[in-house]
Amino acid sequence: MSTEWLNAVKWDRDGLVPAIAQEAGSGKVLMVAWMNREALTETALTKKAVYWSRSRKRLWRKGEESGHGQIVHDIRLDCDNDVVLLSVEQQGGIACHTGRKHCFFQQLQDERWVTVEPILKPESEIYGKK
Amino acid sequence: MSTEWLNAVKWDRDGLVPAIAQEAGSGKVLMVAWMNREALTETALTKKAVYWSRSRKRLWRKGEESGHGQIVHDIRLDCDNDVVLLSVEQQGGIACHTGRKHCFFQQLQDERWVTVEPILKPESEIYGKK
Repeated sequence: MSTEWLNAVKWDRDGLVPAIAQEAGSGKVLMVAWMNREALTETALTKKAVYWSRSRKRLWRKGEESGHGQIVHDIRLDCDNDVVLLSVEQQGGIACHTGRKHCFFQQLQDERWVTVEPILKPESEIYGKK
Repeated sequence: MSTEWLNAVKWDRDGLVPAIAQEAGSGKVLMVAWMNREALTETALTKKAVYWSRSRKRLWRKGEESGHGQIVHDIRLDCDNDVVLLSVEQQGGIACHTGRKHCFFQQLQDERWVTVEPILKPESEIYGKK
């Protein structure tokens, strides 16, 4: 595999770039996670979203525990070469570990963050089974 | 102004969070930039997108030079409190400094980043006048 396209990406001092997962069709911004070279390479090869978990310090194949994987339709890079945008099909219709459709469920209202989206499936059910 | 909602944000070691600007209506992801406390505060107060320019190390009131400002309709925070999502109305229909509709115009095709979106207005015209 050529690495020129990987070298074009401006990795940050930790060797990471933010990656946005946007739902194909709805256009909903589902989540933002991080990728290192290996994660982006595997994502491009397998067409399944693979991120770098900063907390666990390992590759995170989205859906490996939750079953909520992401099939990747399109991979974009921004004008500064430092942000990746994925167009994905969200398996199970739930991207967020809290059991919500997506991660951006806190809305700023009068100087407060208010949760404005429902839990579709409790975390205990998501992580209780593969 | 209360600062509790600002303290809820998990600022990174540089005091920043990534902020995604998504076009209201089309759902297109226009760009990603960074915000510090001051930028987010001013964005919330004025309903106009204000970022922190990491290269220029100063507040960047989107549109101040290009005229391509962003009217903010909605401000969201993700489940980890470390990414902001703005729903915006893009003035001039051009978010990218390259004169394209949005910044994500490079598409991965067979191990190459290919520019797949047109320049709507040359940079020289955008930055030649206010």
